[in-house]
Amino acid sequence: MKLLRVGTAGQERPALLDAEGVLRDLSGLVADIDGALLADEEALGRIRAAAGNGELPALDGTGLRIGPPVARIGKIVCIGLNYFDHAKETGAEPPAEPVIFLKAPDTVVGPQDTVLVPRGSVKTDWEVELAVVIGRTARYLESAEQGLAHVAGYAVSHDVSEREFQIERGGTWDKGKNCETFNPLGPWLVTADEVPDPQNLRLRLWVNGELKQDGSTAEQIFPVGEVVRYVSQFMTLYPGDVINTGTPAGVAMGRPEPKPYLRAGDVVELEVEGLGRQRQELKAA
Amino acid sequence: MKLLRVGTAGQERPALLDAEGVLRDLSGLVADIDGALLADEEALGRIRAAAGNGELPALDGTGLRIGPPVARIGKIVCIGLNYFDHAKETGAEPPAEPVIFLKAPDTVVGPQDTVLVPRGSVKTDWEVELAVVIGRTARYLESAEQGLAHVAGYAVSHDVSEREFQIERGGTWDKGKNCETFNPLGPWLVTADEVPDPQNLRLRLWVNGELKQDGSTAEQIFPVGEVVRYVSQFMTLYPGDVINTGTPAGVAMGRPEPKPYLRAGDVVELEVEGLGRQRQELKAA
Repeated sequence: MKLLRVGTAGQERPALLDAEGVLRDLSGLVADIDGALLADEEALGRIRAAAGNGELPALDGTGLRIGPPVARIGKIVCIGLNYFDHAKETGAEPPAEPVIFLKAPDTVVGPQDTVLVPRGSVKTDWEVELAVVIGRTARYLESAEQGLAHVAGYAVSHDVSEREFQIERGGTWDKGKNCETFNPLGPWLVTADEVPDPQNLRLRLWVNGELKQDGSTAEQIFPVGEVVRYVSQFMTLYPGDVINTGTPAGVAMGRPEPKPYLRAGDVVELEVEGLGRQRQELKAA
Repeated sequence: MKLLRVGTAGQERPALLDAEGVLRDLSGLVADIDGALLADEEALGRIRAAAGNGELPALDGTGLRIGPPVARIGKIVCIGLNYFDHAKETGAEPPAEPVIFLKAPDTVVGPQDTVLVPRGSVKTDWEVELAVVIGRTARYLESAEQGLAHVAGYAVSHDVSEREFQIERGGTWDKGKNCETFNPLGPWLVTADEVPDPQNLRLRLWVNGELKQDGSTAEQIFPVGEVVRYVSQFMTLYPGDVINTGTPAGVAMGRPEPKPYLRAGDVVELEVEGLGRQRQELKAA
């Protein structure tokens, strides 16, 4: 199942994109989204066609917005340096155990929402990631299999990062990870039963149409089940918590000078195989 | 005003401790808490007397529990090494600009709730802190005065920390800061108008009755208004967000070997001048 939330920011209603590509309302207010939220059959047809391709529905002109697929995110746990090639491009050794940092839930926006370049930023960077959404409370899990059993589903996540704030301003990475709009999530949550092997998903990201990241979750140092098990040794994971499982190589920081950091006007598109596609325009905060 | 929330975990109702020490229900369901939540006049009398002393109300036998004073915490921003003497005891240089890390809102419990020593922990440590609760959305503030103007009020916060998880397990500090129950908050939120000088508050913490920390917010490297201004350059602060502004010297980590880390059965009490008192018993997770 593809679960999503549709509507203006803060007013989203839960919806389901079914196997036929029909968007169905799950809010309990109406039985079917067709008449309730869509202006016309043509718009619905575009959503169906896009969903069939695993692409982001083209909502232009429908008046619809896709929000993040999780209504109330308790916390976002991020795994740093979880791909061998990304660790290498940043000059870091592959970590001996998972690197954990947190991102505030208020950084989350919808998959097509604007991303703001913070004031004073000269190193705003991109990171396509596989997000794991927790479905059951997890404490002190004993195996990677148990870890996977606590996953509700998967989504595309954009872990936007400001590298000067993250690395050059003292302390932890959090100054560069928590700027407003820095975590587009969605377009939908794909339930775990429809992702038989989370360690075999292609991730790609484009800036202004140019392919910048092209990796696979097969290259993760710590796979999803092990990440969930590991995190549960240090903190309790609750339903609706999100884990951003790291990014493959290809970020701006890892490139030769002058590094191609993001600027207002740039357009980023990203997708994870089977989980849909995001598109954001950058604007100045 | 002293604002608090009373009731079983997750079912707390907002209440006000007025100038006469009377606990008043603010939930809109009943006008006064006396008859609604308290079993008898004797218990109410104990609360009044304790409030008059600025102490934690003795709720034993009343069936009442005080929850955290903020209903929906969006994020908890923590300032690390914000007292000269604490930075020194940890062996760190005083930071040139504030050190920021995050704590997940789900770590928050009430001021008298049990604190769990995580499985595998041998270095669970205490930290009494002044917590700032944000009252207005803050973005890119320009002065410390503006910072103070965005503060709704203040509370006692216990930033419980596991030092091995925090420092010796790779990556950021977050593994040692986000264990379940690791942020007792309260007993109440004291509105900013009743805290004329947040830079002149004594902070104390006892373990099993022995005084361990005894500092003053006068010793903060970065005062409250400047902290709010600074944080707002990197992330947007929303009403209900909490900032833990750092701890003075006297933590277990800063003491000679064998360092007196917390164990199941220990009792920690802490208070910030004018903001009330907490008391937690440690138990094994």
